[in-house]
Amino acid sequence: MFVNKISVEISWGDCDPAGIVYYPQYFRMFDSCTAAIFRMVTGIDKRAMIERYGIVGFPMVDTGARFYIPSRFGEEIQVHTSVPKIGRSSFEVSHRVFRGEDLAIEAFEKRVWSAIDQESGRLRGIPLPPEIVSALSTPSIHEGVSS
Amino acid sequence: MFVNKISVEISWGDCDPAGIVYYPQYFRMFDSCTAAIFRMVTGIDKRAMIERYGIVGFPMVDTGARFYIPSRFGEEIQVHTSVPKIGRSSFEVSHRVFRGEDLAIEAFEKRVWSAIDQESGRLRGIPLPPEIVSALSTPSIHEGVSS
Amino acid sequence: MFVNKISVEISWGDCDPAGIVYYPQYFRMFDSCTAAIFRMVTGIDKRAMIERYGIVGFPMVDTGARFYIPSRFGEEIQVHTSVPKIGRSSFEVSHRVFRGEDLAIEAFEKRVWSAIDQESGRLRGIPLPPEIVSALSTPSIHEGVSS
Amino acid sequence: MFVNKISVEISWGDCDPAGIVYYPQYFRMFDSCTAAIFRMVTGIDKRAMIERYGIVGFPMVDTGARFYIPSRFGEEIQVHTSVPKIGRSSFEVSHRVFRGEDLAIEAFEKRVWSAIDQESGRLRGIPLPPEIVSALSTPSIHEGVSS
Repeated sequence: MFVNKISVEISWGDCDPAGIVYYPQYFRMFDSCTAAIFRMVTGIDKRAMIERYGIVGFPMVDTGARFYIPSRFGEEIQVHTSVPKIGRSSFEVSHRVFRGEDLAIEAFEKRVWSAIDQESGRLRGIPLPPEIVSALSTPSIHEGVSS
Repeated sequence: MFVNKISVEISWGDCDPAGIVYYPQYFRMFDSCTAAIFRMVTGIDKRAMIERYGIVGFPMVDTGARFYIPSRFGEEIQVHTSVPKIGRSSFEVSHRVFRGEDLAIEAFEKRVWSAIDQESGRLRGIPLPPEIVSALSTPSIHEGVSS
Repeated sequence: MFVNKISVEISWGDCDPAGIVYYPQYFRMFDSCTAAIFRMVTGIDKRAMIERYGIVGFPMVDTGARFYIPSRFGEEIQVHTSVPKIGRSSFEVSHRVFRGEDLAIEAFEKRVWSAIDQESGRLRGIPLPPEIVSALSTPSIHEGVSS
Repeated sequence: MFVNKISVEISWGDCDPAGIVYYPQYFRMFDSCTAAIFRMVTGIDKRAMIERYGIVGFPMVDTGARFYIPSRFGEEIQVHTSVPKIGRSSFEVSHRVFRGEDLAIEAFEKRVWSAIDQESGRLRGIPLPPEIVSALSTPSIHEGVSS
């Protein structure tokens, strides 16, 4: 399984009056981390992926997060992103946030690789390209700086 | 059980290049809806609650959302918020988002009514005030406009 | 000149570790207030305007804000929005934020009523519809609740 | 004059239904870039600066931005930040955003190095530390990756 590790420094604007990250901001970070792991395994960004594969994106179907340790502005966290389950068109993303050695947050996403159905005009899942499935499944660890 | 219903108009800035609500923005809405139901049953806002009850807030422990129907800018949604489970210091919040008659999103939150422990300087749960527990449990429906 | 007044309650998530509104959030509010005044004078929302008038929107060319008094979460502010200058395709928006009687922020926007040029594929200004110019110029005050 | 250059990749969540950066998000970027230049010249982050210098931060008094070229998600921009004017306690920050060779945005900020007045309990400007003034004024260019 491919694991993408990104270091993020918590900015002032991510934090609330309690001085800790306002949790909706984590979901913005996670969305960027999901885009990043796809960019890492395909070598192209989300916009190019949308063009190459004829998709509109990979909309969220279900997401959740458990918060164990809060983070304050100025602190650095590391997000470990992987795609532990891949179906025909849906897939699950895992984000594990570490502060040093400590697990601070566990989050998951269920998304669908989606195109517009020409007849109905509605979104529908289409098969994930085999080269992406293969790359996401190959054991490898990549470390990047910031998102 | 007290249910607070809030109508929200989706704004341009809530939406992404696919023209639908960028899902982290829903978590901002839900956080405001949780603040709103507490304001509704206590008659005071979050800041006054923090002062009166000696809490730092009610930090999020666990949250999640399932997305059934996307919403586009200019559309109106209605969020039905309630607190279906109340423990000694932790409680669960439910947000059900409707577009007309259709259930568009189901979300939950697990939060803890928290103060700073004087000795350790760390957050710890303290008992929810009985008048708040009682008000949240009393069957009633309140409808408001926007958040 | 039409003036649209909107009351906004400052939410927890709008505020930073200093406990006051994180200023980029004000620009989100102002953008919603600009959408609101156009909705108020046209009777249709931004999406319907885009369809009816064949525009892509009214992109920002120049904006600024002066901050006199900070606002804290739980407080209520009132935003007075008007369109004091209207050119052929560009126009200026004014937002004046009040806390009670006190002027807290003065902001302006310069925007252009824009369509896609069919030949070049680029954005270009097109004339503002006369009925909108007329409505924005007619002296009137409208008060709304929240944004 | 010290110039800090930061490359930023535009993320999906920064963009609006027109597919370009939603302008309030630029103000978040600029705020991070201002924090970054202070971190670069002091060697410490904003939280440590707040502790060391007894300030509450450097609140915004006046800000503005002119937008010449829009940026789309997946694109990379470079923000050049400097502090061209330094008074006793107030200072001006300049952010110039480039897409390749082209100037896409010019923004400025006027901020005040601020502490809490012990008597009145209100914010007031205090003198900028001379070592920071000196470092910001020294001609130097630093290039970083991402914000």
